[in-house]
Amino acid sequence: MYNPQLNRHGELAHLLSIEGLPPHLLRKLLDRAADYVAAGERDEKKHTTLAGRAVFNLFFENSTRTRTTFEIAQKRLSADVFSLNISASSTAKGETLLDTIHNLEAMGADMFVVRHAESGAPFLIAKHVRPGVAVVNAGDGRHAHPTQALLDMYTIRHYKGDFHNLTVAIVGDILHSRVARSQIHALTTLGCPQVRVIAPKTLLPRDVQQLGVQVYHDMREGLKDVDVVIMLRLQNERMNGALLPSANEFFKYYGLTEAKLALAKPGAIVMHPGPMNRGVEIASAVADGEQSVILPQVTFGIAVRMAVMATLAETKQ
Amino acid sequence: MYNPQLNRHGELAHLLSIEGLPPHLLRKLLDRAADYVAAGERDEKKHTTLAGRAVFNLFFENSTRTRTTFEIAQKRLSADVFSLNISASSTAKGETLLDTIHNLEAMGADMFVVRHAESGAPFLIAKHVRPGVAVVNAGDGRHAHPTQALLDMYTIRHYKGDFHNLTVAIVGDILHSRVARSQIHALTTLGCPQVRVIAPKTLLPRDVQQLGVQVYHDMREGLKDVDVVIMLRLQNERMNGALLPSANEFFKYYGLTEAKLALAKPGAIVMHPGPMNRGVEIASAVADGEQSVILPQVTFGIAVRMAVMATLAETKQ
Amino acid sequence: MYNPQLNRHGELAHLLSIEGLPPHLLRKLLDRAADYVAAGERDEKKHTTLAGRAVFNLFFENSTRTRTTFEIAQKRLSADVFSLNISASSTAKGETLLDTIHNLEAMGADMFVVRHAESGAPFLIAKHVRPGVAVVNAGDGRHAHPTQALLDMYTIRHYKGDFHNLTVAIVGDILHSRVARSQIHALTTLGCPQVRVIAPKTLLPRDVQQLGVQVYHDMREGLKDVDVVIMLRLQNERMNGALLPSANEFFKYYGLTEAKLALAKPGAIVMHPGPMNRGVEIASAVADGEQSVILPQVTFGIAVRMAVMATLAETKQ
Repeated sequence: MYNPQLNRHGELAHLLSIEGLPPHLLRKLLDRAADYVAAGERDEKKHTTLAGRAVFNLFFENSTRTRTTFEIAQKRLSADVFSLNISASSTAKGETLLDTIHNLEAMGADMFVVRHAESGAPFLIAKHVRPGVAVVNAGDGRHAHPTQALLDMYTIRHYKGDFHNLTVAIVGDILHSRVARSQIHALTTLGCPQVRVIAPKTLLPRDVQQLGVQVYHDMREGLKDVDVVIMLRLQNERMNGALLPSANEFFKYYGLTEAKLALAKPGAIVMHPGPMNRGVEIASAVADGEQSVILPQVTFGIAVRMAVMATLAETKQ
Repeated sequence: MYNPQLNRHGELAHLLSIEGLPPHLLRKLLDRAADYVAAGERDEKKHTTLAGRAVFNLFFENSTRTRTTFEIAQKRLSADVFSLNISASSTAKGETLLDTIHNLEAMGADMFVVRHAESGAPFLIAKHVRPGVAVVNAGDGRHAHPTQALLDMYTIRHYKGDFHNLTVAIVGDILHSRVARSQIHALTTLGCPQVRVIAPKTLLPRDVQQLGVQVYHDMREGLKDVDVVIMLRLQNERMNGALLPSANEFFKYYGLTEAKLALAKPGAIVMHPGPMNRGVEIASAVADGEQSVILPQVTFGIAVRMAVMATLAETKQ
Repeated sequence: MYNPQLNRHGELAHLLSIEGLPPHLLRKLLDRAADYVAAGERDEKKHTTLAGRAVFNLFFENSTRTRTTFEIAQKRLSADVFSLNISASSTAKGETLLDTIHNLEAMGADMFVVRHAESGAPFLIAKHVRPGVAVVNAGDGRHAHPTQALLDMYTIRHYKGDFHNLTVAIVGDILHSRVARSQIHALTTLGCPQVRVIAPKTLLPRDVQQLGVQVYHDMREGLKDVDVVIMLRLQNERMNGALLPSANEFFKYYGLTEAKLALAKPGAIVMHPGPMNRGVEIASAVADGEQSVILPQVTFGIAVRMAVMATLAETKQ
């Protein structure tokens, strides 16, 4: 089957989604990230892997946090970094998305990191770039957010070692979450035997069971004996619609409290992609508690993004 | 005659307009750009010519595309790059333009790249900067856009060799175009014997013939046997006024189609400064066709801007 | 007394306010700035002191001028620079200030330069950062602006040598000025025997005399025989309130003119933190006159900020 992310040697040419990536490629990215984490701990923060390369962060949807993590990773790799707020640029003048891309290629762009509200936009771009130009999906619509999923896998492996004996629960707004979709693909690809999703029916996609997960509507049942709890961010705008009663109600049923966390395995870790809504999907006592690995996730996220971009830069055509 | 762009040795101290530059200086800039193009093809993208120099992009008028090309050129030359959105800065607090410039000089600015809606603003700045500080005009009002004209000359020379046997047609909104004015000066300075402008009367300046061009109102006549077709961007805001009937009407009479292009010489090249309005001034089949050199223009534009800034940085006082 | 700016060895761990800093530390910072000024004059602009360090400029309150001076200083020290417009970032999504800080620390931030409309915000941040992470106050509410005060001290020392025989007048809106508060602390700490403030009663804090200054309401009296005149910027928004009659009235009584300046000592210097309101607090003839050192202040400001950040980066925990 044609996979737009891989070249004909089966190497990573773009990172568009976790879906379609073989397990050995995921593990290779995690291993390389581990090297960067280790180098950082030795205070070797700066590398020359992307020196002289022009990397463009094209954020058609605003996200200071994600853009900043990519920029940090790029500067640590010594890239020339250009971040464009696309709504304010030429596309506003009627230029098409592909005209913009082809122009930036003509200016010498070597890599595009793309965030877009439309699912599939990074695929469209990857299909049309020159050989040698790489595309990284930094979140597209409800579809995928592969670097977030990779840093989550890195975090789980860091704290729990192997995936083969783990039970992982993903809690919250699965329906609108590109993060959840990518996490589920990554966990099943890496051999995690039991992935649970915990959510009200209104926040679950219809076909969710086809992704190989077990569905729970009751958080106390779903958290029982899990090794890893991944909380999702609740978008405030969902609260006003018919999908959810109120933030208070949501917290009562699906917010992670110390009492609910006590149902998980002792030593279970708590994760969140950030930014957190304290008191909505997670209690502050848990967010700042001993089992929380939310800040280490952020640290590992830099190393994972360095690993992805360094790997892409070294892929031969 | 006093020429504010040249120092007393006749060297380039600022780049403000093509008008007033001797042909040997234009050719020297094009030759240096050719060196950067060649270096880029050998994958030698990074140079140290501006290392430790502080270059300020002062965009009083927004243009992501032009600003990005300058930033890329500056980073390839290893400059410290500062891009200021001036409307949001101190001038809003009542500080004058020259106060802003003098403050940035006091902070150690070595070069200003200036885009301004007022014709002449870069000249005013150049007149008041310290010796050793260079000013580059990145587009001022309807007056000039010299780096665009230089990259256009580079493109013509690249594809057509010498200027002395060429017929060049510039098509569209000549009246509001600083690009057209700079192109006409560059072409006549470099010895191009026949420069044609093709436009409706409402989009031509009154004194256009004094620039040494031939005027055509009929595109089919004007394109006959030309070697180079330069299309101009039609500003959308012109469409609403009394100057133009509609985008459709404009395309019918002045849009470049395959049929009209067939009237030019075989092998004629098609240029456009971008961003294009497809279906307004140019048909997609032409924009993406074999005779289009629109994307190479962009690539050469980086090299030309590197050449300009490197030359300015090396000028002795 | 606990001083959050110093580590247990009495070294500078953060720069939050001039208040609480011992004179020898201030002098050390000024001496280091002098080294950078001297290096700049030898055209040695670039240093590697912050190479590989990630410095975040967190501007919760917009100030292009101050942010630019910090960015220049950081790039001259070879830092990796990240400037965040915080109102547009995650805090808008409901994340708390400290969550933002902890996330940036987890991304590897080594230093925060903070501008905030709330007095005390940089102190709050400094209290919660990890050991080894430094905080610089770039202006908080009406409280402090220590790097501005340091560059003012540098300027005075540069032109007047020692502080022990000087009379310094600070003129204008003392009430709303964090600059004035920091200047007064710096001057008294460095041994200046006579600091005068000149302002209408409505623009003076009630307890101003407790800061060790002499109060004047008449500018002609206050300027008599001073060595240094520091003019403050009048915020336009004050003019609309009950505090001030009009800009014209203010200029008449508290604007610095050549006639009033003639009352100061011959050779007295005139300072202003910028941006100036010409014709409101200062006449153009004075601003651009021989006694004005307003532009040198800006130049020294870069060196002083380099000195502060280099010193902080070298402080052991």
